[in-house]
Amino acid sequence: MNDSKDLNCPVAAIETEVIQLAHGGGGRLMHSLLETVILSAFENPAPNECHDGAIFEVGGERLAFTTDSYVVKPLFFPGGDIGSLAVNGTVNDLAMCGAQPLYLSAAFIIEEGFPMAELRQVVASMETAARQSGVYLVTGDTKVVDRGNGDGLFVNTAGIGAVRARTPVNPGAVEAGDVIILSGDLGRHGIAIMAAREHLAFETSVASDCAPLWEPVKALIEAGIELHCLRDLTRGGLASALIEIAETAACALTIEETAIPVLPEVQAACDLLGLDALYVANEGRFAAFVPAAQAAQTVELLGAAGLGAVAIGQVTSGAGGTVAIAGPYGATRRLTMFSGEQLPRIC
Amino acid sequence: MNDSKDLNCPVAAIETEVIQLAHGGGGRLMHSLLETVILSAFENPAPNECHDGAIFEVGGERLAFTTDSYVVKPLFFPGGDIGSLAVNGTVNDLAMCGAQPLYLSAAFIIEEGFPMAELRQVVASMETAARQSGVYLVTGDTKVVDRGNGDGLFVNTAGIGAVRARTPVNPGAVEAGDVIILSGDLGRHGIAIMAAREHLAFETSVASDCAPLWEPVKALIEAGIELHCLRDLTRGGLASALIEIAETAACALTIEETAIPVLPEVQAACDLLGLDALYVANEGRFAAFVPAAQAAQTVELLGAAGLGAVAIGQVTSGAGGTVAIAGPYGATRRLTMFSGEQLPRIC
Repeated sequence: MNDSKDLNCPVAAIETEVIQLAHGGGGRLMHSLLETVILSAFENPAPNECHDGAIFEVGGERLAFTTDSYVVKPLFFPGGDIGSLAVNGTVNDLAMCGAQPLYLSAAFIIEEGFPMAELRQVVASMETAARQSGVYLVTGDTKVVDRGNGDGLFVNTAGIGAVRARTPVNPGAVEAGDVIILSGDLGRHGIAIMAAREHLAFETSVASDCAPLWEPVKALIEAGIELHCLRDLTRGGLASALIEIAETAACALTIEETAIPVLPEVQAACDLLGLDALYVANEGRFAAFVPAAQAAQTVELLGAAGLGAVAIGQVTSGAGGTVAIAGPYGATRRLTMFSGEQLPRIC
Repeated sequence: MNDSKDLNCPVAAIETEVIQLAHGGGGRLMHSLLETVILSAFENPAPNECHDGAIFEVGGERLAFTTDSYVVKPLFFPGGDIGSLAVNGTVNDLAMCGAQPLYLSAAFIIEEGFPMAELRQVVASMETAARQSGVYLVTGDTKVVDRGNGDGLFVNTAGIGAVRARTPVNPGAVEAGDVIILSGDLGRHGIAIMAAREHLAFETSVASDCAPLWEPVKALIEAGIELHCLRDLTRGGLASALIEIAETAACALTIEETAIPVLPEVQAACDLLGLDALYVANEGRFAAFVPAAQAAQTVELLGAAGLGAVAIGQVTSGAGGTVAIAGPYGATRRLTMFSGEQLPRIC
């Protein structure tokens, strides 16, 4: 099918007989699992779908619908916890469909023996995050599993939003010449989680970037920015998101390494841990593909919304499905998708 | 507040510091957990809510929204598996709101090492169950947890439906004189799960009653039956469902023990295991509260839909919040809610 697929992970290696950790990592293995096993059960009668949600019409209104389970470890980390993550993550999936988040469900799988005080803390975080985004948590479920058969707490949220974008927001709408805008610096969430894991003898002051993204997206839509594609940069980070968009849109992307903001302390942690910030998960960052003529205005609007947005590259008319990154000394290399995630259970 | 609450489980005993298995059981402890910890985060702007779902208006259409996580053990059992359960369970929660199920999400939490063949089997069951109910699985998520921190597979589904009932379907609409219709015999799901648990040295040919319930509910709505309340009889069984409705509606219910159908093999298994079939979980049974004048027609319509429905009792004008059951020899006793479930992880 595609050079980069063969290059990274041959198909034979992807067809495993048991689930591996990397199947949850946002890379090749996860996409392979989704395509070959899960998606066969999914049939969307409305073809106009966004990346991580479905769009359909009900009562004359175009709705977006999305779900995510959260298994982040540890449950509490600098900058957030599983509760804020579960609300913001689903709010953001709706925002990336160009949809205003309206209603959320919340389902808890709790391990026997889990402290009630921590559950209260998570629920309070969800309440705060929901209020911040103007969404309502309206329905829920609680299951308890016996000790040793869970890991404290898993949370699922599903969300319903009303599509506000006036044109389709998905890779199919991406055009040669579009400018790629990055909403802020990379890598904070992944590094914060890694630092919070007890067994890592490593300390940093970095807090997760976990944040809701509907307000900035709304500002772009209301200003008339033609959003061709939006993508939050969670599992697999910026690199995996761009590769997936390039492949789906069958277009070529070029980005400038020096344009991509990474905090010095995040870069230091990445260097220490042998990680590439381009692949580290974020929970409050997104990439927007907009017409070149609206790129400067997009950066300005996101700046006014409090985000340190920058233009990092462009869609070119080159060979489809590829992402090229130009380094500081003029050399250009091609980004490839990892088979898994650099660290599991990041969200 | 209420006699039966004090009788069964004093408040002091409910406020535990850690989560117990019984918190997931559908009895007092679960309701206490929901009321004191979880529901504080839930604020439904539309007051017209049904039991296990939220109802709100979008684009002039009244929608129902619900979610459930499934942690059933074992994953495969006579009459179904976690996949059919996850689709039918959420379809049924929507049906109990008087809503036609339209779209479902599906989220998988998979333990590292889980056999790919079993995942395929579960996904195939979901596809079959979705087709059977005319719903679309349109969006999903996959997370993988490290070995030892899950239990094979947990599935969450959330569902969106369009409310078709013309009048409110909830305990608030229940009136003195209403007849209680039971859609079929009790206890099959719980007994099938218990028999399938490897450590129970007990065999039976009983298969789960796991089935979708929208079609029979639709038949009632289309025939003009005024559905005052609908409730599927899952965790906690018929007894817990009736007690909860009686308490919420502040009404008194009287049911006839001899009118309640239980298969001889289910009764035998209950006797063997020391269980009361009234409290055993079902996954394809519901109770309907309808005006007395429409009771016979309701039974007839459900019969035509292939269900062995019977009238089992009535709403009386007696003291609120109680369920009385008349035994075969004239004696009447009061049903009380258990603090937990007779067996955990039934769904």
